[in-house]
Amino acid sequence: MKEVKLVFVGFGTVAQGCAKHLASHKKELERDYSFQFKVVAITDTVKGSILNSDQGINLPDALRVSQSGAKLDAGELKGKTGLSTIETIRDTDAEIVIEATWTNLKDAEPGLTHLVTAIENGKDVATSNKGPIALAYKRLTELAKSKGRQLRFESTVMSGTPIFNMHEFALQAAKITALKGILNGTSNYVLTEMTAGKNYNEVLKRAQELGYAEVDPSGDVEAYDPTAKITILTNALMNANVNYHDVERQGITNITPDDINIAAKESKRIKLIASASKDAKGKWAVSCKPTQLPSTDILAHVDGVMNALKISMDVQPDVTIIGPGAGGDSAGYGLLSDVLTIHRLRNLNAR
Amino acid sequence: MKEVKLVFVGFGTVAQGCAKHLASHKKELERDYSFQFKVVAITDTVKGSILNSDQGINLPDALRVSQSGAKLDAGELKGKTGLSTIETIRDTDAEIVIEATWTNLKDAEPGLTHLVTAIENGKDVATSNKGPIALAYKRLTELAKSKGRQLRFESTVMSGTPIFNMHEFALQAAKITALKGILNGTSNYVLTEMTAGKNYNEVLKRAQELGYAEVDPSGDVEAYDPTAKITILTNALMNANVNYHDVERQGITNITPDDINIAAKESKRIKLIASASKDAKGKWAVSCKPTQLPSTDILAHVDGVMNALKISMDVQPDVTIIGPGAGGDSAGYGLLSDVLTIHRLRNLNAR
Repeated sequence: MKEVKLVFVGFGTVAQGCAKHLASHKKELERDYSFQFKVVAITDTVKGSILNSDQGINLPDALRVSQSGAKLDAGELKGKTGLSTIETIRDTDAEIVIEATWTNLKDAEPGLTHLVTAIENGKDVATSNKGPIALAYKRLTELAKSKGRQLRFESTVMSGTPIFNMHEFALQAAKITALKGILNGTSNYVLTEMTAGKNYNEVLKRAQELGYAEVDPSGDVEAYDPTAKITILTNALMNANVNYHDVERQGITNITPDDINIAAKESKRIKLIASASKDAKGKWAVSCKPTQLPSTDILAHVDGVMNALKISMDVQPDVTIIGPGAGGDSAGYGLLSDVLTIHRLRNLNAR
Repeated sequence: MKEVKLVFVGFGTVAQGCAKHLASHKKELERDYSFQFKVVAITDTVKGSILNSDQGINLPDALRVSQSGAKLDAGELKGKTGLSTIETIRDTDAEIVIEATWTNLKDAEPGLTHLVTAIENGKDVATSNKGPIALAYKRLTELAKSKGRQLRFESTVMSGTPIFNMHEFALQAAKITALKGILNGTSNYVLTEMTAGKNYNEVLKRAQELGYAEVDPSGDVEAYDPTAKITILTNALMNANVNYHDVERQGITNITPDDINIAAKESKRIKLIASASKDAKGKWAVSCKPTQLPSTDILAHVDGVMNALKISMDVQPDVTIIGPGAGGDSAGYGLLSDVLTIHRLRNLNAR
C-alpha cells in the first residue's frame, strides 16, 4: 500500500479537526479504503511551517504542539523550517494539498494563490476556504480540468454535512431545478432566540460568548457568508456562472421583535433564506434574505446553529438535508471526506 | 462507447419510473456519464416477457404498450416471447439486471431467486425489492462479493432519497452510531391527519383513495414495511447482522385521538419511529414503534407521506435527510441511480 503524501496549508480549527479524524481513523482508513497517509508538511501563517518528506510529521504531536500554543517550527517537531506557504506547496512531493486558510470574500487571497499553485504543481486539492470557490469557481474548475487534477470543497457549504459529494455520487443525473436553504448557523441562532423573545443585541452577545459569532459579526448577520455559499451551490450544483457580487443580499440586522411577532401571528417564522432558481427565460434568481416561512415548510423548524438545504430536481420530489454548518469536527470531516474521494478516484483511475 | 445491456425483471410502476427516466435522460447519460444503454429484455409475471438482444427493446414503445394495458408479448414489441423470468435472467447477455418485483417479507420470493440467479450468472444487480435485502442481506452480499458483482438497493429505503449511495460515497469513513427515522409514508400520512383531528378509519379510507395505502394496509399500519427498512438500514449502514423477525415491531392501529391529544398538550407529536443503536455491551436495540417526539426534534415536523432519517455518527453532529419515501418517479430514480453507480464503478475498474 503506497503512502499518500499530504500537506496542510493553514492549521487552525478546521485543519486540526481533519488532522484529528485522520489520526483517530488511521486503522479504518487503511482497512476500508486502502488509504495510508503521511503528512509531509504543515504550514500556517501564525504557527509557522515544518516540512519533513522523509519521516513525515506525526499528527498527534503536531496537534499537541499546536494546542499548547507553541509554534510548529519551535523545535519539538523535526523537519525543515522557514519555508513560505507557497514554497511549501511548490517544493513538497505531496499528492494532496489540504487548504484550510481563512475566507476572504474581497479577492479570495491568499487561498486563491494557494489553490492555483497546488493545481499547477500537479496536486489534488481539498479546501474548506469559501473565498476562492465563491469568487473564482469557473477559473479554478477549468484549471483543475486542464491539469487533470481534482478540486474538492465539501466543507465550504454546511461544513461536513454532505452536499457536493451527495450531489455527485448519490443524486447523479438528477437535474437540480431550485435550491433553498439556511446556510448560516450564527444568524439562524440569532433568529431562533429572537423568536423565543430575546432581543437582537442580547442574543448576539451570547452568540459571541458561545463562539458562534465573530467579534465582527458582519459576515454572518449581514449575510456575506451565506451569500457566498449560495453562489457556490448555484455554480456547482446548477452548472451556472453566477457572480457573488450580483447575488441579492440582505442581512438580519433590521429584523425587529415586531417583525417576528407579526409573522408568528400567522404561524410563520422568519429565517435567513438563501435560494436559487432559473426563470422560464433562463434568468437566474439568486438571493439571500430574511423570508417568512409557513409552518408547513420544514425549513421553518430548523433551529439554532443547524443548517439545511432543500434540493428540487426533475426526477423526484424535493430532498432536504439538515446538519451541522460549522465547527472544527464537522468541517474537518468535510475535508477528510474530500481527501478520501480524491484517493478513491485516483486509485480507480490508476488501475 | 460500448452499450450497456439492461434487463428489467418486473415492469410495474417502479420499473416504469426507471424506464421513463432512462428514456428522458438518454442524452445527458451519454454526455455526462458515458452511459449508453440497450434494454435487451423485459419480463413481468402479469405483462409477459420479451427478449431482443440484437435490436434491443425501444423503451418508449414498451412504456406505451404497458400503459395501454396490453401485454408486452402481444405482438407490438418485436422479440422472442414465452421465456420464464429465470430463463430471461439466465439466457440474456445483459450486464445489469434491474429487479423490481413485489416485496414478500415471508420468504423473499420470487425476488430472492431472481437476485441469486442474476449474480451467479455474472450480472450486477439494482433492486427496489425490500424482501431479499431485509431477509437475506448477509447471504446476498457475500454471494455478490464472491462473484465480484455489485448488488445495489438504493430504492428499498426512502425510494429515491439517497441513503445508501450517500453513506458509501458522501459519509465515507464515518462510523454510524445510531439511526432514527420515519420510513413509511402511509402511516405518517395517517398520523399527520389524525393530529389534524380526523379519525383513523376516515383517514385510512382517504389514504386508500389517494393510492397511498393498499387494500390490505397491514404492511404499512402494522409496520411490517418500515420494520423491514430499519432492518436493511441497520445491516447495511451499521455493519450488523440483525434478523428482521427479531426487530421489535408495533403498528399504529391502536393509536387513539386521545393519545394524540395528550401528547399535543405537552407539545409532542406521535410518529411511527424506526430506530437502531447498539448499547455499551454491544447488544442491538432495533425497533419500529409509535413514539412521542418533542417539538425540538425535527422528525416531529416531517408530515404527510414524507420520509426522514436522522443519522448519528462519530465524526460530527447528526445529519438528517428528508425526502420522498414512495412513488414510481422516486423509486424509479433510485434504480437509475444504482444503475449509474454500477456503470461508473465498472468503468473505472475496467480502465
